[in-house]
Amino acid sequence: MSKEITTRAADYSQWYNDLVIKGGLADYSAVRGCMVIKPYGFALWENMRDQLDKMFKDTGHVNAYFPLFVPKSLFEAEEKNAEGFAKECAVVTHYRLKNDPENKGKLMVDPEAKLEEELVVRPTSEAIIWSTYKDWIQSYRDLPLLINQWANVVRWEMRTRLFLRTTEFLWQEGHTAHATKQEAIEETVKMLNVYADFVEEYMALPVIKGVKTASERFAGAEDTYCIEALMQDGKALQAGTSHFLGQNFAKAFDVQFLNKENKQEYVWATSWGVSTRLIGALIMAHSDDQGLILPPKIAPVQVVIVPIYKGEESKAPINEKVEAIMKELKEAGIRVMYDDSDASRPGWKFAEHELKGVPIRLAIGLRDMENNVVELARRDTKEKATISIDGLAHYIVQLLAEIQQNIYNKALDFRTENTREANHWEEFLRMLDETPGFISAHWDGTEETEEKIKEESKATIRCIPLDAVAEEGVCIFSGKPSKQRVLFARAY
Amino acid sequence: MSKEITTRAADYSQWYNDLVIKGGLADYSAVRGCMVIKPYGFALWENMRDQLDKMFKDTGHVNAYFPLFVPKSLFEAEEKNAEGFAKECAVVTHYRLKNDPENKGKLMVDPEAKLEEELVVRPTSEAIIWSTYKDWIQSYRDLPLLINQWANVVRWEMRTRLFLRTTEFLWQEGHTAHATKQEAIEETVKMLNVYADFVEEYMALPVIKGVKTASERFAGAEDTYCIEALMQDGKALQAGTSHFLGQNFAKAFDVQFLNKENKQEYVWATSWGVSTRLIGALIMAHSDDQGLILPPKIAPVQVVIVPIYKGEESKAPINEKVEAIMKELKEAGIRVMYDDSDASRPGWKFAEHELKGVPIRLAIGLRDMENNVVELARRDTKEKATISIDGLAHYIVQLLAEIQQNIYNKALDFRTENTREANHWEEFLRMLDETPGFISAHWDGTEETEEKIKEESKATIRCIPLDAVAEEGVCIFSGKPSKQRVLFARAY
Repeated sequence: MSKEITTRAADYSQWYNDLVIKGGLADYSAVRGCMVIKPYGFALWENMRDQLDKMFKDTGHVNAYFPLFVPKSLFEAEEKNAEGFAKECAVVTHYRLKNDPENKGKLMVDPEAKLEEELVVRPTSEAIIWSTYKDWIQSYRDLPLLINQWANVVRWEMRTRLFLRTTEFLWQEGHTAHATKQEAIEETVKMLNVYADFVEEYMALPVIKGVKTASERFAGAEDTYCIEALMQDGKALQAGTSHFLGQNFAKAFDVQFLNKENKQEYVWATSWGVSTRLIGALIMAHSDDQGLILPPKIAPVQVVIVPIYKGEESKAPINEKVEAIMKELKEAGIRVMYDDSDASRPGWKFAEHELKGVPIRLAIGLRDMENNVVELARRDTKEKATISIDGLAHYIVQLLAEIQQNIYNKALDFRTENTREANHWEEFLRMLDETPGFISAHWDGTEETEEKIKEESKATIRCIPLDAVAEEGVCIFSGKPSKQRVLFARAY
Repeated sequence: MSKEITTRAADYSQWYNDLVIKGGLADYSAVRGCMVIKPYGFALWENMRDQLDKMFKDTGHVNAYFPLFVPKSLFEAEEKNAEGFAKECAVVTHYRLKNDPENKGKLMVDPEAKLEEELVVRPTSEAIIWSTYKDWIQSYRDLPLLINQWANVVRWEMRTRLFLRTTEFLWQEGHTAHATKQEAIEETVKMLNVYADFVEEYMALPVIKGVKTASERFAGAEDTYCIEALMQDGKALQAGTSHFLGQNFAKAFDVQFLNKENKQEYVWATSWGVSTRLIGALIMAHSDDQGLILPPKIAPVQVVIVPIYKGEESKAPINEKVEAIMKELKEAGIRVMYDDSDASRPGWKFAEHELKGVPIRLAIGLRDMENNVVELARRDTKEKATISIDGLAHYIVQLLAEIQQNIYNKALDFRTENTREANHWEEFLRMLDETPGFISAHWDGTEETEEKIKEESKATIRCIPLDAVAEEGVCIFSGKPSKQRVLFARAY
């Protein structure tokens, strides 16, 4: 293989970086902590974004766009939110550069162009959006307001990793306004379910739906719902969050409405978001030591065709045949690519497309043509088979569905095998070190215990699962009584 | 009518603002010079963006995403580009806020979190992208690189107007890299043609394709091609630009490649962009004193149906009929909305949808149902007709195409009527004041004359049209000889 990939066993973290960079998904940039999303990675994001966008619209949401900047006075209005993000804000203080008189050809910040009020580059948009909603909401007739925004946000992270944690990232943030608490809670849960459906059905990644503990809540939320996924190294990854914001932002920005009883009332809010971080989850959940494994539903290329030929005279008839096959596959809605470059050999191409996670590879040579067949290789199982060209599109449509399901099943089996119950502290610690994964255990419900468990084990409560059953028990750490198990893991 | 719109005759500028705000396209924001794009305006932008994106992909381009921030040292590398944008840059100087000890509950910029190197919020991305291309391009095999980015950019404008000139705006910027000068020039012209095709075919707005004079070039370009449109007040609006950048950025960022002759050579570049400014052009070109007139191909809602009823019992059968009509129209690919709100009367709804520029309005009452007809009103001509429900979808598909063409023709007629030749200076000035529009006139080709004309008339050379014919003449200002006419106008 031409591009060396570190194995998972040798260095899991380097394996991940190799896949991102050598797989052509993203690259480091000249800006600290920011990445460049390369065309192949962006095509993947577009497929994810377009599907999510459709699901948002199908549930009654519309898109809008709010400013990148948040004036400091608005940013600080909702105190907990401000406190939560203040330490990681990029701040615009000036609006002009000028020639540096002491350095010919260089520029400097013009001290005379200092802003009266600093602008925060949005780390999240509750503040700017709720300051706007104040003008848009007067009566219950203006509610609900179901708005989503696709945007870039900036959080000044000290330790960054491609896709998983970058200073700037792309995301969507839904911001809805409701007349009643009940309706807002229902919206919060509805969008959590949209996320779970998307991640499971399209990304082939099973998730646990749950609620965060108070200490892990979004800054400014009354309740944070989340979906949690398990990576191959046994660490958890939070894949999406949906927040019930109560009336906190309405009160901070004085957003009241005249209800049906003709009384002024504060508006109820939700917000919810997923980001390019999902791509990190996708990579770490499914891929192997040969490279990426992408679920067919979101793979930029679902089928790649590689011609096997010697010299131009044998390539011409293959090209002709492939053109017919491509036409048939495209008509069946399949994203297909013909890799007919003369610059590299078939073996190099095979490795390259394995690295890029293309679900199905077809190879075709002159003898295959004579027999009216192609050689088909599955990326997920590495199985190869000789397949008739007749009815190929139909066969591939079904196989893509099977691959999608197989990738999901494999991830689900992995999670099932790596979700364990721990009933005392030593067992808990041993599991974390020896068989990392989700650990279901009793917790006494106090923030103090949660904090100590985190300090001593580096594991956090990922969530209180929505489907948790009542069960009497004692906290693994404090020994105090508990009424249900919660889900622990070390996490990204 | 419930929402008052200023007439064009009374105050053209206020008319424009009224359409934007009362038409629900955008709103002012709490951030100086930045706007909020409201759901209706954003749906319009989505339709424009999706079509452009398709046209970019059909011409071989792929999307990617580069960082929002440009480190100052990269920003200043291409000298002319830096000089052109330095005066309007938002600059990030700090990465943290902290509690203000003298103002409880308030935040302040943490002086200890000052960046070593300031970050410019991208006003355009040549610098950050070409610093990245350096790593991506080694050989002629890596070329051409045909990348586009959809992004937000920030230019600190002193005088802003909704859509037309805002501090932050949304746009796309294509950045391509080529092995030869010829290929880069061809790409520049190809993308100019894509823009012209899009604006004419989808926005129903005729444009003049041309080249900018040296003084109006993009900072850092060798040549700037543009499309220019005429607004109803006789002012021109630059609707898109495509730049041939020569080797300027390749030299500034040392991007060389090994050519087929095995020699190092600097890469040739283009960049091209259109922005949310196009929405401003769309509004000002087509709309009237009742509100927006949107071309069907990009209108968020193409057909609105308004029920005419008294009381719930008469509404039920109408609802049922409308449901069947909606189904038929949707199957024909028509974007249709049913305005069945009980909160307002038909007359109010009619005015509202006129204001919003919905191309076709259908009204249906019980008597219409008995006669198997609907009342149809065209937004562009305000004609009304009674139309059979049988075959309605087919009729509407054709009518939408006719409306699209009619809006284009009207704008073309307007432009033809308002494009004049001026042959001496007094005539030129009189035209600008009395019959504003495009003025085709001779110019001696010097920057000095161009500048004086601008000073004395406030008109600029919009472009040297690509289809200009050779014609001997004398400059309207200097009297010096000229070989072709150029296009003047006062402009947005």
